[in-house]
Formats: sequence, C-alpha cells, structure tokens
Amino acid sequence: MAEWAKQHAGITGVVLDISGVLYDGGGDGGGVPIPGSREAVEKIKASGLKLRFCTNETQATRGKLVEKLQHLGFNISVNEVTAPAPAACRILKERNLRPHLLVHDDLVPEFDQLDKTNPNCVVIGDAADNFSYKNLNEAFRVLIGLENPILISLGRGRYYKETDGLKLDVGVYMKALEYACDVQAEVVGKPAKMFFQSALAEMEVEPQQAIMIGDDIVNDVGGAQQCGMRALQVRTGKYRPCDEQHPEVKADGYVNNLAEAVDIIVKQLHK
Amino acid sequence: MAEWAKQHAGITGVVLDISGVLYDGGGDGGGVPIPGSREAVEKIKASGLKLRFCTNETQATRGKLVEKLQHLGFNISVNEVTAPAPAACRILKERNLRPHLLVHDDLVPEFDQLDKTNPNCVVIGDAADNFSYKNLNEAFRVLIGLENPILISLGRGRYYKETDGLKLDVGVYMKALEYACDVQAEVVGKPAKMFFQSALAEMEVEPQQAIMIGDDIVNDVGGAQQCGMRALQVRTGKYRPCDEQHPEVKADGYVNNLAEAVDIIVKQLHK
Repeated sequence: MAEWAKQHAGITGVVLDISGVLYDGGGDGGGVPIPGSREAVEKIKASGLKLRFCTNETQATRGKLVEKLQHLGFNISVNEVTAPAPAACRILKERNLRPHLLVHDDLVPEFDQLDKTNPNCVVIGDAADNFSYKNLNEAFRVLIGLENPILISLGRGRYYKETDGLKLDVGVYMKALEYACDVQAEVVGKPAKMFFQSALAEMEVEPQQAIMIGDDIVNDVGGAQQCGMRALQVRTGKYRPCDEQHPEVKADGYVNNLAEAVDIIVKQLHK
Repeated sequence: MAEWAKQHAGITGVVLDISGVLYDGGGDGGGVPIPGSREAVEKIKASGLKLRFCTNETQATRGKLVEKLQHLGFNISVNEVTAPAPAACRILKERNLRPHLLVHDDLVPEFDQLDKTNPNCVVIGDAADNFSYKNLNEAFRVLIGLENPILISLGRGRYYKETDGLKLDVGVYMKALEYACDVQAEVVGKPAKMFFQSALAEMEVEPQQAIMIGDDIVNDVGGAQQCGMRALQVRTGKYRPCDEQHPEVKADGYVNNLAEAVDIIVKQLHK
C-alpha cells in the first residue's frame, strides 16, 4: 500500500487530466490511449467515486475533444469536462470584453456567441501552428494599442508531449506577449485556483476529499495542492524523472500510470 | 542651449543607434531615411568627433546592413559598426560552442566559420518570419535536450517600428524560450555593458566623454547610462511619449530627432 493512500484516506472524488494521462496526442490531431487508462476510467465510474476531467486542452472545442476520446474508446461525455475556453467565455461576457483571438482554428467556435469587433482584450490559447510571427504581431498590436491592455491566457503550460515529440504550449507565448507589452496575463485554466474550484463544485466534493491525477508537476500537481487537494503525478505524458526533484512542488505520490493510481485508490475504498 | 549639453560638456565621441535614428526600416528589407539624419552623420564626421554605430540589428549581416544604408545615402562603412552577430561569434569560438541558429536567413553567413553539427547551445536573433511555431519548437527541443542549456540572445528588445507598423523583436522570443526551458539567456548586444564597452574601445573614448543617441529608452538610453555614458532619446522610430515617464530610465535629454541632437552637440564643441 502506497504511503499517500494510507495517510490520506477518505477520497470521494477524482479529477483527471486528459492529455498525457488518458492518451498521448498526435501532431495530426489524433493520438493513442495510454495502456490501461480506458479500463481505469471504467473502474473509477464503477467504484462510485465522483469523476471529473480537467484539461487545459485548447486545440479543439470541448465537443470535438470528447468525440476524439470516445473514438479512442473512452467512456466520457462533454458535461464531465472542465476546460478553459468555456470558462473564459463566461468571464468575457461578465466583463463586456470583446476578444481578439489567438487560438487554434478548431477552438474558434467556442467563442461564436461573443462580439469580436473592435477588440478590447486578447485571448490566447494553444494555437500551435497559428503561432506564426504574423499572428503574434497582430495580437501584440491589439494589446499595445489598448489604454488598459488585458491579456487572458487559456493556461500557462510550458510544453506538452505529442507522439512526434515535445511541443511548446500556450504559456510560452503568454510570456512573450507579457514581456512585449509589460502586462501580466490573467490565466484561465490550470493552475488557477478558480479553475480547480469550479471542477470541484461541479462534482460537489470538498478539496480535502478529492485527488488530482496529472502528468504536469506544476500545473496539475502544484495547482491542485494549492487548492487543498491531494495530487499524484503519473510517469506518462510529459513526465520527466527530474520532476520528482522539483524545487517547489512535491506530489503526494508518483505512480507509473493512471491504471496503477486507480488500483490503489479503489483498493483503499474497500478497506 | 539644452540643459544636458550645458551640464555635460567635454564630449569627444558619439555612439549612434541605427534603426529609428538614421532610418525607418521597411518590412521588405528597405526603408526611408529620417529627415536630416544623413546630414547629421556628415556633420559629426566633419566636426572631429569620433563616431561609432551601435546596432542590435540582426536581420542581415553587418555588410548587407551597411550596403543598404549607403544606398540610402549614408556615409558609413562596415568597420564603423558594432553589431551583435560578430560579437557572438567571438564568444562561441572562445567557449567551443556549436550553435543551433534561430536567426534571419540573411544573418546565417555571419556564422559560416563555426561548426554547427551536434549543437550544444542555441543562438537566437531577430528572425522575423522565421519565428514560426515549427522553428521555435526546434530550438526548444535542442535546448531542453542539453544537460547544461545555453541560450545566447542577440539583443533583448521588445519591439521595433517598421514603415508598416510595430514588429516583435528578439527579446520576446528569448523570454519565450527562457520560460519554456527555465533558463536565463546570455544577451549579446544592447543593453549589455560589454557591448557598449567594445564600441567605446573601438573609438578609444572613455564612457564619460561619450554620448549615445537612440530611440529605445531601455536598450539604448538605459544601457549606455549603466556603462557611464550620457544618453539622449530621439522622438523618432519606436519612441512613444510615455517613454519620457519611464519608471526606471530617464534620458539625459529628449530631442525631436538626430539632426537636433547633433546641432546642439556640435555647437557645444565650439563654446
């Protein structure tokens, strides 16, 4: 029995990161399931534990992402997923903001309901190949031209792993625009506290009763812990051995993959 | 008589920034001289003042840049110009570094003499359209794969002005890679002290006897002042009115353009 499970019994809800935990994404928008992860999701659902998927994925609408995962064989539906774009839309509406979008083409439909004329803020997501010099300049010019520049970033990740290698994530371009315009971005998505809190609210679970499982030591593990949750890092996806010596974040446990984590959590339930 | 000239007589050397002071660059590699600047260069040369051009320009070799300026009517030669790429080459050779280059195509010939196989550092310049997602990912993968990641940046500017608008500069992409790999870049070029010092050494002038004239409040004015020089900001190029209220840097004087600055400096000589 792992220490983290013994010391911290009483889990009633599980929050799962998607990319690098359920599957490894491909540059072509496809991907392959991580062995045992489909069965692990079924096992959580069968156990009576509450379950929420919490992703910073912004290369596609939530609907398209779920469709892809279903196609890969996962038991998942749209209303189980917490994602940055819908959260950002709520914020934009509340504050009467008209966004200039620097996002992946496939994410644009999430913002269909918003007025985008004469923009008064910039929203940046994981735009991948849309992060051209031309597009970054355009976003920069909108920001630098605003009296009160507002930059909203859908996550602050450094990089992620696809089947063909590591890829730069939105946080890198957020930092670029922050430096260019001397502004600080508002982050929607992990590791923002509000984002984890909304996932917990959807599950109706208190942070102390919830456990996050992710491959990102800072955004998944660190973010969840700051919110009062326990957090495990899986040794899949973008995990690197040096993460276990991270100077600021220490996971409650390290497991080889999601299947191993779920085995331990579910066994603990039956003690 | 402007205060800065009265208070600080004894100038024997002038250091000029190029882009935004001599001319405004065009996105097509062309550009237009700023009115009066060609005559101002002639006036400095006729006055007996020593003169050095100090640029962070890395979109072309020093030779090509000088050729363009000569074509625009400026009296300038290659050996009067201090530029980051030749300075970086000296550093790379001294330290046996084999660079992966993320620079403008036209800058590549400056690095012809260096071994670039199996790179052990990344050199980043103002790559403009070469700042694609693909190319930034490539540089990132080289860096993250090094045991001791070394990132050398040819300047740390935020943006510059071309005839068709503001453009993001190398510093923005330097920050992006710094964040992605959790490293700190070594900057070659303004505002690095060593870079100004090598310009002064070429002129054989002490910092207290030299004056820098530039359009960048941080990289030109702040950098030169940190080196012990006086510095003027011109209200051309990327100058913005808010620069005169910069929280950290105050120029010794603000002038409308190079012609006005040179008029005052040369008049002071004859007092």
